[in-house]
Amino acid sequence: MNELTISLDQASPRPLYEQIYAYIKDEIQNGGLPRDERLPSSRMLARHLEVSRSTVALAYEQLLSEGYIYSQPGRGYFVNSLEGLYRLPADFDVPAPAAEAEHRWAYDFSPSGVDLGSFPGNVWRRISRGLLAQDDPYFFQQGEPEGEEELRQVIASYVHQARGVRCTAQQIIVGAGNDYLLMLLCAILGGRRVCAMENPTYKKAWDILEILGNEMRAVAADEGGMEAEALEKSGASIAYVMPAHQYPLGIVMPAGRRRQLLNWAAAGEGRYIIEDDYDSEFRYRGRPIPALQGLDGNDRVIYLGTFSKSIAPAIRISFLVLPKPLLSAYRERGRRFSSTVPRMEQKILAEFIRSGAYERHLNRMRSVYKARHDALLESLKAHPQAFRVSGEYAGTHLLAALPEGVKERQAAEAAKKADIRVYGLSEYEVVPRPAGRAVLILGYANMEEEKIKRAVSLLTEIVGQLHGRGKSGV
Amino acid sequence: MNELTISLDQASPRPLYEQIYAYIKDEIQNGGLPRDERLPSSRMLARHLEVSRSTVALAYEQLLSEGYIYSQPGRGYFVNSLEGLYRLPADFDVPAPAAEAEHRWAYDFSPSGVDLGSFPGNVWRRISRGLLAQDDPYFFQQGEPEGEEELRQVIASYVHQARGVRCTAQQIIVGAGNDYLLMLLCAILGGRRVCAMENPTYKKAWDILEILGNEMRAVAADEGGMEAEALEKSGASIAYVMPAHQYPLGIVMPAGRRRQLLNWAAAGEGRYIIEDDYDSEFRYRGRPIPALQGLDGNDRVIYLGTFSKSIAPAIRISFLVLPKPLLSAYRERGRRFSSTVPRMEQKILAEFIRSGAYERHLNRMRSVYKARHDALLESLKAHPQAFRVSGEYAGTHLLAALPEGVKERQAAEAAKKADIRVYGLSEYEVVPRPAGRAVLILGYANMEEEKIKRAVSLLTEIVGQLHGRGKSGV
Repeated sequence: MNELTISLDQASPRPLYEQIYAYIKDEIQNGGLPRDERLPSSRMLARHLEVSRSTVALAYEQLLSEGYIYSQPGRGYFVNSLEGLYRLPADFDVPAPAAEAEHRWAYDFSPSGVDLGSFPGNVWRRISRGLLAQDDPYFFQQGEPEGEEELRQVIASYVHQARGVRCTAQQIIVGAGNDYLLMLLCAILGGRRVCAMENPTYKKAWDILEILGNEMRAVAADEGGMEAEALEKSGASIAYVMPAHQYPLGIVMPAGRRRQLLNWAAAGEGRYIIEDDYDSEFRYRGRPIPALQGLDGNDRVIYLGTFSKSIAPAIRISFLVLPKPLLSAYRERGRRFSSTVPRMEQKILAEFIRSGAYERHLNRMRSVYKARHDALLESLKAHPQAFRVSGEYAGTHLLAALPEGVKERQAAEAAKKADIRVYGLSEYEVVPRPAGRAVLILGYANMEEEKIKRAVSLLTEIVGQLHGRGKSGV
Repeated sequence: MNELTISLDQASPRPLYEQIYAYIKDEIQNGGLPRDERLPSSRMLARHLEVSRSTVALAYEQLLSEGYIYSQPGRGYFVNSLEGLYRLPADFDVPAPAAEAEHRWAYDFSPSGVDLGSFPGNVWRRISRGLLAQDDPYFFQQGEPEGEEELRQVIASYVHQARGVRCTAQQIIVGAGNDYLLMLLCAILGGRRVCAMENPTYKKAWDILEILGNEMRAVAADEGGMEAEALEKSGASIAYVMPAHQYPLGIVMPAGRRRQLLNWAAAGEGRYIIEDDYDSEFRYRGRPIPALQGLDGNDRVIYLGTFSKSIAPAIRISFLVLPKPLLSAYRERGRRFSSTVPRMEQKILAEFIRSGAYERHLNRMRSVYKARHDALLESLKAHPQAFRVSGEYAGTHLLAALPEGVKERQAAEAAKKADIRVYGLSEYEVVPRPAGRAVLILGYANMEEEKIKRAVSLLTEIVGQLHGRGKSGV
């Protein structure tokens, strides 16, 4: 039996039992104590080291619980078989984060931008502070998987009033963003589905549905959006559409087409339409167009709404309105997933909507965005030789087709030299489309009117030059 | 031009400009002020109402920004077309949430409880208020999909120091809870996998992995946890284990077994171990046992940690530590999913950990939970004829096996009559196990010592009666 001559430091802040534990552990790790070697009894080692027996017992217990030694009743402790245990390297250090190299553009027509300057910070903070001050342990308990009843009630009333969605709070599932809710929805629907989307489309949703194991089909669309006949032929059981304002084309789906899609859904077992109503709050001409969901008499529409676009991207709160036939599947499968939104956040948002602050915020945003929309539209329309506009009067972006012969990449590169970031329609293609006039997607949410005007004036020059060059054959 | 005879209430707490704004808004909404009607100039209206001109200007500004009126330079303000403006009807009212009908137990041994009274509310609120006061639009932008660099750095350092996890911030993915991160992980891993878990186990994870399309295998376990040979035979490529404190059995996986599992993982292409380290912060005897991840020299461990257990269930922040070979799959597939945790929340948590408040909180909780653990253990051990204890000295629950012949359901029902909620081990079975002594899972996190003692004394009586009845053949 090994002698275990451990030099204990009585003056050390490290407890004696830990010193014994560490010594034996090191010995086992470096092979000084071979496998199946018997350790001295705690009584013997205690006498040898002149410490109390309980000190040694504590050290042995720790070694035992970490698996360095094993015990045989009546026989004592033995060294376990180890193939090299982990030890923290003293020099382990976390590297500093790489410096952000991202370029800040003078003009960025990002279609996913929002005007952050308009975030209703004061109201939001006032509600937050008021709730924090309540010091209620309720807020720190986990809520229901589907979200807080109160918020779901408020959302149900809101989407009914504002979007014509017909639902009760029981159909509403709150979650941390659209991407999460798509994941959850796939878990609820179960199995791999064939999903149809338009082309070009909201590529992120396409990618996510594909990553989640669904088979994706790009279905033909015309100026009314997804074609029902092509959808039928695609073999899809899920159609993902944005009837209020198709992304990126900006198409508003006409009533006839809506009806056709609803008929398609009703005609087959297990068919559903996912209605992504991402920017319906912003419409600058005419009355808001009610959601497809409100037209549906057959419970085949899954409505997806978000507050990330209308309040701020950092507000990670979106919601699904599940049609009634999916509620039992939600209870069986979906409810297993704990809520992803803290109670406190849900309470703040409920208060924000109920107090009328959301309504005021939306009206203010609508007026800010309308002014930018108008400035962009007017500037572009002043140069019909350079831009042909579509997808206007709603949302926070529109489309500008360039003259024949001007290539999208050419235009983007030339714009880049003028420190203008533009986005090409081809980025939203999920399968290649027939070549045609290049189209830019111009988001205006995060750019003030004067800047928009300057940027369009620069772009007009760029397009003119490229067009001229194209015509002269250079 | 309309006269706008507004009766202002000088004594009202509502500012005068708001009274003017509300009056005009109502008039526009109910048609009293028709579309394109010109409003009186602010000078005229101020004189008419005997208020300052700036008061009227403020009201007009608000109406303008909410889109109720528009201005024509040099001509004044006009009533806008209301189409597209959101109005919530005056009777928009949200019913109060239904009263919770859930029974509040006198004694609830819930194994998933936490002591909410110990939530560090003051510190959390102080940090929150400080950040809210900064009024930084940064917080309202969407963050990186993997989480904020700052929080990931702090977590990397923390898990290194506290758990011996070896990683850089680049390997850390922050998400809104374990369930979400399991979803994300399945998307990263791609395809259906064969996943092994022990039996009994953390049933929620089993259900979630199954719902997400994986094939589940219950693998034999002994007193050291999952058996490597059985794992090999199962054909699984993913093993989900809780080496620090198996749920629900409370097994601490010894070093030798850890090594065997790591060898299993290293021996096959695409094999991974998910290490769920859910309650490793709480250990009441000896030193904390380092994570399996730290032992792994082959990058086969996916570490899953959470702050929901150690801070509060409503803190929806968990994290994955991905092994390096999965980082490219994360970038390709996982990064498509936007972050589920608001920047602000991440910032608060980072500050909470960095300031040392988390460490202090953990130490306090450890001592609160240890006292409860000790009270429960002592009470149970005082009645060896009724309870045989296992899984003690860690976490927030332990196990008590009942005498031969006493059935789990009997015991639970008899306890219910005494207003005591106990949980049976069979609830954690994923496939039926051979019959044996009934075992109760007793969580003590949310019960004070005196209550624990009273509950155990009641339970002892109940078990004694059932056992006596069993023996007398009744």
